[in-house]
Amino acid sequence: MTTAHHATREPAPPGYTDHKPDHLDRLHKIEGQTRGITRMVADDRYCIDVLTQISAITHALQQVALSLLDDHIRHCVTAATRADPVRAEEKLDELTLALRRMLRL
Amino acid sequence: MTTAHHATREPAPPGYTDHKPDHLDRLHKIEGQTRGITRMVADDRYCIDVLTQISAITHALQQVALSLLDDHIRHCVTAATRADPVRAEEKLDELTLALRRMLRL
Amino acid sequence: MTTAHHATREPAPPGYTDHKPDHLDRLHKIEGQTRGITRMVADDRYCIDVLTQISAITHALQQVALSLLDDHIRHCVTAATRADPVRAEEKLDELTLALRRMLRL
Amino acid sequence: MTTAHHATREPAPPGYTDHKPDHLDRLHKIEGQTRGITRMVADDRYCIDVLTQISAITHALQQVALSLLDDHIRHCVTAATRADPVRAEEKLDELTLALRRMLRL
Repeated sequence: MTTAHHATREPAPPGYTDHKPDHLDRLHKIEGQTRGITRMVADDRYCIDVLTQISAITHALQQVALSLLDDHIRHCVTAATRADPVRAEEKLDELTLALRRMLRL
Repeated sequence: MTTAHHATREPAPPGYTDHKPDHLDRLHKIEGQTRGITRMVADDRYCIDVLTQISAITHALQQVALSLLDDHIRHCVTAATRADPVRAEEKLDELTLALRRMLRL
Repeated sequence: MTTAHHATREPAPPGYTDHKPDHLDRLHKIEGQTRGITRMVADDRYCIDVLTQISAITHALQQVALSLLDDHIRHCVTAATRADPVRAEEKLDELTLALRRMLRL
Repeated sequence: MTTAHHATREPAPPGYTDHKPDHLDRLHKIEGQTRGITRMVADDRYCIDVLTQISAITHALQQVALSLLDDHIRHCVTAATRADPVRAEEKLDELTLALRRMLRL
């Protein structure tokens, strides 16, 4: 953590730093798949085949999300829990909101 | 549809033809959002903010899927139901499989 | 369809009639599992074990839902499609709303 | 907690102790709703109405699950994080598996 970060909201590197290359690989693949779906629709491909692809991308995106969430809990939430109860509380409220969005609740 | 399609499994235009421009618009937007997520991770943006974006894209993709599904049932399944019981049966089996994938069952 | 049914909204038997015993079996099992969860919480059982059970029940309920949906499309929607375009349209609007609720969209 | 618990894997009270009455209330209500679905099918109620009820119960169950998860993270995971790095690691692995099941991944 350098001085340059002091004023920002999230001075520390994100929790996913160690897995960043892996996340980027997966996201690049998902970008390609998303362009693929647009192409399928542009080419009048069969509805069910487009739906199958959308289900695959949704699944891949949620895998990335779970992986980022795991990183976030292991690093950001854990660090806050060990360092500062008030900050920990904030992180936990934020985490529950993120889970609520992921579970569509 | 051109003669080239005669031998293929789905010679008819897909069920989503009427809404094709709308689907393409939405898919282009989703492509942009997907690139946005890759950029967020590349820029070390905060985990929770990345998760929020992934939830938004997943939701947008499933909206497109529901819309394609609606088109598919109204056109492809309905046409088969009116025209040919055997073909209808095939369409319904295929539809249930697509729903199973969408509901992750 | 007999005269006795004329005044009701849904005169015909529901689409799931053929699979009714199977649905009832599965629902009775789900009732038992739901009581099981209440008992786990009453007995202070470990959080994660309760969550595992809730995931299992949610999955079982959605399997029943998919199965009812399949019956509904094969019988109610198909019958309307063959009999009456206006009624078919209504059934399709209703179906899309049900899918929207199931997909939490 | 009594001496009888000493040898067990989870000697401490579960993370949801403070909200136990609330969880039990909600679970009792869900039990009633589940019995209601069985009755609807037994009474040949309209497919779509049964599906609407199943969506409502699934939603209610996932709300309970999110609430238990929140309790679990705030109490069990936080306690382990503060007390013992090895135990914390185990709790986090277990948590990610539970999230994977909840997200159907």
